[in-house]
Amino acid sequence: MSGVLTVVGLGPGNDALITPEVTAALAKATDVVGYIPYVKRIPVREGLTLHATDNRVELERAVHALEMAAAGRQVVVVSSGDPGVFAMASAVFETLEKNPAFGSIQIEIMPGVTAMLAAAARVGAPLGHDFCAINLSDNLKPWATVERRLRLAAQADFAMALYNPRSAARPHQFARVLDILREECGPDRLIVFARAVTTPEERITVMSVTEADADMADMRTVVLVGNAATRRVGPYLYTPRHAE
Amino acid sequence: MSGVLTVVGLGPGNDALITPEVTAALAKATDVVGYIPYVKRIPVREGLTLHATDNRVELERAVHALEMAAAGRQVVVVSSGDPGVFAMASAVFETLEKNPAFGSIQIEIMPGVTAMLAAAARVGAPLGHDFCAINLSDNLKPWATVERRLRLAAQADFAMALYNPRSAARPHQFARVLDILREECGPDRLIVFARAVTTPEERITVMSVTEADADMADMRTVVLVGNAATRRVGPYLYTPRHAE
Repeated sequence: MSGVLTVVGLGPGNDALITPEVTAALAKATDVVGYIPYVKRIPVREGLTLHATDNRVELERAVHALEMAAAGRQVVVVSSGDPGVFAMASAVFETLEKNPAFGSIQIEIMPGVTAMLAAAARVGAPLGHDFCAINLSDNLKPWATVERRLRLAAQADFAMALYNPRSAARPHQFARVLDILREECGPDRLIVFARAVTTPEERITVMSVTEADADMADMRTVVLVGNAATRRVGPYLYTPRHAE
Repeated sequence: MSGVLTVVGLGPGNDALITPEVTAALAKATDVVGYIPYVKRIPVREGLTLHATDNRVELERAVHALEMAAAGRQVVVVSSGDPGVFAMASAVFETLEKNPAFGSIQIEIMPGVTAMLAAAARVGAPLGHDFCAINLSDNLKPWATVERRLRLAAQADFAMALYNPRSAARPHQFARVLDILREECGPDRLIVFARAVTTPEERITVMSVTEADADMADMRTVVLVGNAATRRVGPYLYTPRHAE
């Protein structure tokens, strides 16, 4: 089976953040595959079939996309943000590994502006020094691993971007994350809740971890945590380039 | 002093990765300010003055940009990649903090595709699970801090993106980084050297840390290091979404 499968990032929400490379790939596509809210962002046109599926079916979605690519269709899998950051690219390679029959399909990944970079830009430069990105969902890893990484990240004095901070299925875990941050980073550490960043529903709030409450995050929120030196200057938040 | 200063990311090198938002800002600019190789990427046109300066003068560059913005010019500061990741955004806020007279200038940051995301996309999805970004330059922090962060990142089992791995001024440090990675991550850990990614000079190599040599990196290289589960599938490299 030959064919080409393209996996693209649509950026955080505003179409002005979609790269021309991705726009060109979408213009040539016969089939667009992805999670419902991301596929909704693609304009309907003649010759293009949209395949929108629910969350948590990433592997089935990848199989479907690879099958259509093998059949000679021009298939584009869409992710929000960057496809390589907690999104579809890894699921496609996992599917490729499990299904050697897809081995000769060429996979092309097109990067995008991931949520943490857009959120950081909206408040200033909180990721201006060494930082890490942690997916707080425990769908795919034990919760103990999440807690351990948070503590090591704090000890390394990384600024942090926390993806998928909260869902209806696990309302208590983000409260636990805030407790860990207060314990490891002290009460004054700055935290940013960036919801639906760059969309009309955008809502961004900056405060100390002491003031933060678990209800401030939902699945459309990316949370940024400063390092020990992150500070406010006027209405902005930034992390200095230098460190002790 | 009022005025607006825009700080943008040009992406890793290929113009097809510049966001339309950034393209629009550049089209309105009267002055573009930045490090020589980034300013070279901006087409000359009537009404636009290019101000290219050498490396390591980030704060002088920021003062100059803020002064022109205060004088009513439409100033765009250009960075490679994303301006908030080891680039000019943080230097602009540092300058703002040191010069309260610039306090009423509005700063707008426009995100971009940072090098690690473009490099990851070229090889597959090596940053598909929790990861960190570390600037290996010790211009702005003690070398001991770099070493400590590398060890904690390895202990957290983060995939890693290492920016500014090597310069002529510090040829021995990257060899030391490779030693630390072998020690903390074992001999088989996968490493990617991505040089001049998305440009005509792009060169990407994947190997184990045992096979890696310090000469494989220079200042145009971003280095990616897998986590314990990062593996090859066909010609690709990916990190599974799940973890133990």
